[in-house]
Amino acid sequence: MNIKITGTGSYIPAIVEKNENFYNHEFLNSDGSSINAPNEVIVKKFKAITGIDERRYTKNHLNTSDIASFAAEKAIEKAKVDREELDYIIVAHNYGDVRHGSNQSDTVPSIASRVKHLLRIKNPKCVGYDLLFGCPGWVEGVIQANAFIKAGLAKKCLVIGAETLSRVIDPHDRDSMIYSDGAGAVIIEATNDEGGIITHDTATFALDEAHFIYFGETNNQEITDNCRYIKMYGRKIYEFALTNVPLAMKSCLDESGVDISEVKKILIHQANEKMDEAIVKRFYELYNLEMPEGIMPMTIGKLGNSSVATVPTLYDMILNDSLENQEIKKGDVIIFASVGAGMNINAIVYKQ
Amino acid sequence: MNIKITGTGSYIPAIVEKNENFYNHEFLNSDGSSINAPNEVIVKKFKAITGIDERRYTKNHLNTSDIASFAAEKAIEKAKVDREELDYIIVAHNYGDVRHGSNQSDTVPSIASRVKHLLRIKNPKCVGYDLLFGCPGWVEGVIQANAFIKAGLAKKCLVIGAETLSRVIDPHDRDSMIYSDGAGAVIIEATNDEGGIITHDTATFALDEAHFIYFGETNNQEITDNCRYIKMYGRKIYEFALTNVPLAMKSCLDESGVDISEVKKILIHQANEKMDEAIVKRFYELYNLEMPEGIMPMTIGKLGNSSVATVPTLYDMILNDSLENQEIKKGDVIIFASVGAGMNINAIVYKQ
Repeated sequence: MNIKITGTGSYIPAIVEKNENFYNHEFLNSDGSSINAPNEVIVKKFKAITGIDERRYTKNHLNTSDIASFAAEKAIEKAKVDREELDYIIVAHNYGDVRHGSNQSDTVPSIASRVKHLLRIKNPKCVGYDLLFGCPGWVEGVIQANAFIKAGLAKKCLVIGAETLSRVIDPHDRDSMIYSDGAGAVIIEATNDEGGIITHDTATFALDEAHFIYFGETNNQEITDNCRYIKMYGRKIYEFALTNVPLAMKSCLDESGVDISEVKKILIHQANEKMDEAIVKRFYELYNLEMPEGIMPMTIGKLGNSSVATVPTLYDMILNDSLENQEIKKGDVIIFASVGAGMNINAIVYKQ
Repeated sequence: MNIKITGTGSYIPAIVEKNENFYNHEFLNSDGSSINAPNEVIVKKFKAITGIDERRYTKNHLNTSDIASFAAEKAIEKAKVDREELDYIIVAHNYGDVRHGSNQSDTVPSIASRVKHLLRIKNPKCVGYDLLFGCPGWVEGVIQANAFIKAGLAKKCLVIGAETLSRVIDPHDRDSMIYSDGAGAVIIEATNDEGGIITHDTATFALDEAHFIYFGETNNQEITDNCRYIKMYGRKIYEFALTNVPLAMKSCLDESGVDISEVKKILIHQANEKMDEAIVKRFYELYNLEMPEGIMPMTIGKLGNSSVATVPTLYDMILNDSLENQEIKKGDVIIFASVGAGMNINAIVYKQ
């Protein structure tokens, strides 16, 4: 028995938020002090490091559970599964449904229950739960689905990553320009087909690193409403990721027995283009190799960092030929890899 | 190989919130209208139905992740495991860390990462994630740990249920008197000992039932801050639970091959004493039996409904002889069962 992804779907939110839209923001340092540069310069520097030109925001009337269900509908259709035969709906997210204009996360009922409701699935034996694991949540959901299938608990699982980070950002923080909304979904099944999940690896670094990404107040110290937003120590994350992600990917690949020359694509979580390039470059250096051209497809320029949605959306776009000069063919070995709040890291070596 | 709980721990929050403390509340119907009864009568009626005399609230300086770590420390000590050998930390909760005085759920990093940090666990291969599954979250966490052990991903797991519902309640809603804070934890291990998890069963009812427990505004319509709180359709939940929980328990027990006469205790989620009695009574009726005396140990009178924390706390208290006239001996068959937001139901048949 192999365990394979048999269908993918994604939802790209409709609102295009361009870098220019941030020109009128009052950006401040985390201590509340002014940044000695005009916004055009701040945004240009931001673009040079992260590679982000624009990002997507969800329309006001939609929430995480809605866009999760849109992506799920497409994955179900693509996999040609009967939705009533799904054993699990696993939804990775971080903040639940945050209504436009609200600062509250709505997590009860679970997003999985809402998605199941929206998909009109009747079968009570289809178990829906939410997985909170930072940005690596969708990859971890695939690893959990794989475990349930191996343990005999499931045959078919729907794994979704969906997030609306636009609802939890501090307008006075430059880092807010990174974050985006999105949803990606896959169907995973036990199958007799060749390929599928070969190996996977997960790590949680929480001794020093637990609070590298956190919930904090606005940089604008004149606002004293105690409202909190997604915040990060970017430099610490950069150094952490550069040290640990290549090692996790290598450990996973070495365990798989697949030679690095057979790896056709690395689908890595997109939080920062320069960081991703440095990670993959260092990964190849561990094998005394140069990073092959085109190995790391990027969507960050147009889609920003949509957390748990990034990797499944990227994968879906490649399979749908919506990413220029990128393809994954049957038999290709790919690596899914992600890093994020926790700090969590994971990787899957997968044969298409 | 069997999979057994080898240690338990719980944390009972320090603040005793008695029914009398609600006498000065302005309770309103959900449409904002007044309730035609003095508070003493409302509270007396509440007590007669739910069995709740008092409930526990967490001190202001503590959050869900703190009390989760307190319970976890005790379970680790009881199981005599080396914390660095844990493969998973699974934390079931629903609202994350909600600071006293805030209406925001803080879920990044995950509560599991915070607990791992507080437990000072270094090993990065110990994976921490959060599971959102309504009140049945802790039972489901045990089922997931069981699957990971079966799939060869883990040998030792820490499964915690922790919640601070006192931080998400509407003071104008009578139902708020039900909710409580708490934390319970267990260590689950692969072992050669006899007993352990025999069978388990889970269901998610989301077609009509998804929003029986939800996030809604205060009953006081003069307050227009859009702040939302935990809310429920109590009557619908009662009818749903009474129909479906006994069937889920029966399905799980029948699959186990254990005769009902061998069941020594039913550890059921405590949301409402009358409802629990009706559920267990109906469960025995399915076998044409009367409900045996003492089969269903109750903590709700003193501890209220602490969501995911209720079942592991109850189990820990019995094993520690802190519940009068209740004991579980080696070899006893017990049933864990829970029902809650989602709507989710689960059950485990377990041999001590």
